[in-house]
Amino acid sequence: MMVVTSAKIRRDLRHHLKHTYPDIDFRFHTHMNEANEDLKIADILITYGEDLTDSHIDSARNLKWIMVISAGLDQMPLKAIGKRGITVTSARGIHAVPMGEFALAMMLQTAKQSKALIKNEQSGTWDRSPRLTELHGKTLGILGTGAIGREIARLAKAFNMTVIGLNRSGQQVDSVDRIVTSDQLPLVLKEADFIVSVLPKVKETDQLFTEKEFKQMKEDAILINMGRGNIINETDLLKALKEKEFQHTVLDVFNEEPLPEGHPFWSEKRITVTPHISAITPQYQPRALEIFEHNLKVYRGIKNEYINLVDPQKGY
Amino acid sequence: MMVVTSAKIRRDLRHHLKHTYPDIDFRFHTHMNEANEDLKIADILITYGEDLTDSHIDSARNLKWIMVISAGLDQMPLKAIGKRGITVTSARGIHAVPMGEFALAMMLQTAKQSKALIKNEQSGTWDRSPRLTELHGKTLGILGTGAIGREIARLAKAFNMTVIGLNRSGQQVDSVDRIVTSDQLPLVLKEADFIVSVLPKVKETDQLFTEKEFKQMKEDAILINMGRGNIINETDLLKALKEKEFQHTVLDVFNEEPLPEGHPFWSEKRITVTPHISAITPQYQPRALEIFEHNLKVYRGIKNEYINLVDPQKGY
Repeated sequence: MMVVTSAKIRRDLRHHLKHTYPDIDFRFHTHMNEANEDLKIADILITYGEDLTDSHIDSARNLKWIMVISAGLDQMPLKAIGKRGITVTSARGIHAVPMGEFALAMMLQTAKQSKALIKNEQSGTWDRSPRLTELHGKTLGILGTGAIGREIARLAKAFNMTVIGLNRSGQQVDSVDRIVTSDQLPLVLKEADFIVSVLPKVKETDQLFTEKEFKQMKEDAILINMGRGNIINETDLLKALKEKEFQHTVLDVFNEEPLPEGHPFWSEKRITVTPHISAITPQYQPRALEIFEHNLKVYRGIKNEYINLVDPQKGY
Repeated sequence: MMVVTSAKIRRDLRHHLKHTYPDIDFRFHTHMNEANEDLKIADILITYGEDLTDSHIDSARNLKWIMVISAGLDQMPLKAIGKRGITVTSARGIHAVPMGEFALAMMLQTAKQSKALIKNEQSGTWDRSPRLTELHGKTLGILGTGAIGREIARLAKAFNMTVIGLNRSGQQVDSVDRIVTSDQLPLVLKEADFIVSVLPKVKETDQLFTEKEFKQMKEDAILINMGRGNIINETDLLKALKEKEFQHTVLDVFNEEPLPEGHPFWSEKRITVTPHISAITPQYQPRALEIFEHNLKVYRGIKNEYINLVDPQKGY
């Protein structure tokens, strides 16, 4: 059995795979160009999913399974794959841990006035006046209740927060005190002390936050966007913050990335800019390959059910 | 029944007390000097516990109960109080929520490289190279497993950390995976990725961390001190950080407070200085008065058991 990678796999993990499965012929490559020859005879491909074309699929005559070690499949030639009946599995869900932690880190950073404390430290000033607050007893609105939103909810409950979740269907999920549907956003805006968005970029999420929504938020509210930049009208956001409609926003995602030099977000005191970094973790590849190893057992008939099996027709 | 305060109580809470207990004669004062005349005939005193002398106790002929709305009783004239048989209750335990949150805030601040991200934001630099890590799967050593230590442990477990607790007796406590006794500090130093101290200032905790201990810590370890400054030998700490014995320390408490201007801690990159601020919260008085209200019911025979009843002989 031959397994080909077109994604650069960490040395320790390559070693682990070779060592654990001595009967498998692993061909570790770092680009599709390099992997292409082996792919023609490989049984299994491990890829980030951004480098495959129809013609790769056509020439991969032995290919039976593609393990995509990322969460998104937007760039996959799913039609060609579907026609050939190739199994596709993804690493969906592996962003939950780092992004859950990042959300809490940013909530605590604002509640505990860390930026003010760090500024005072830089100038060597002992100043106990920053008004530290608590997460305890506050209300958190989570926009999007997939794996990431649910992990944020779970952590927030440990901090004794009240959690409102917003999703399309209104389907109940764990750790959320109350679920509302997309059209009930005003309710979240009215009640939440913290709002965290992990919404994807789709037509329905475009410009979700405009002047009207910002005006409905609590005066002390904190908005954290770590989904996609498209939900926010940038001009309205700057205006709302200048007019103190709400307290602060932490933005990890933007309409244009990298956020251009000199963009007004950089210098606005009520905005914290982070460089689309919430999912970054040294655990990324280990977690993705854990899914691969489980699915390898399914492929070999040792276990029953694939994790994150993708329907090429539906795209998820 | 007369209740006197020698501590400044927040206006909303004064209003709440007067409104809830119309039969009680509340005399709200902000200093003992001001309270002294009323104290001579009062039944109950609410104080921060730092302003009472033997002579106040002598002249307070009606006094039956003192509610101390702080955690420490070091400055209370307990002998005179004990002789008179006056009941004493404290607000022990109310620091747990804010200090638990602060501990997690500082752990996440270091794990998520917030200081580097904030610095890059200040200069308008989009830089995704800071090496963000996770709390998930890491080991936390908590020195001191009272109410605060246990709250930190509880939160850490939500982040899927392994928690080692250190206390004098080795007594098991909730949310701690493994308890060790004071003489087993080397074991904590060897295993912990994060060490948080909430130890009090007593003879046994003096100079707990010297060159020898710093050398036993993991290279990537983070040390957070939010108990008392006396546990750390400052000269050894600076030397250990310069020699990269461990990664970073967050200090909220110091041998001398305020930390003097120009002290080398202010400028050392591997030290984060915060101004003894971990317990600060707008919920301080509400929580202390919640204990008062419970204990008032006990005093009046409506409930059975005082919260935080103090034995004046023992001092706790």
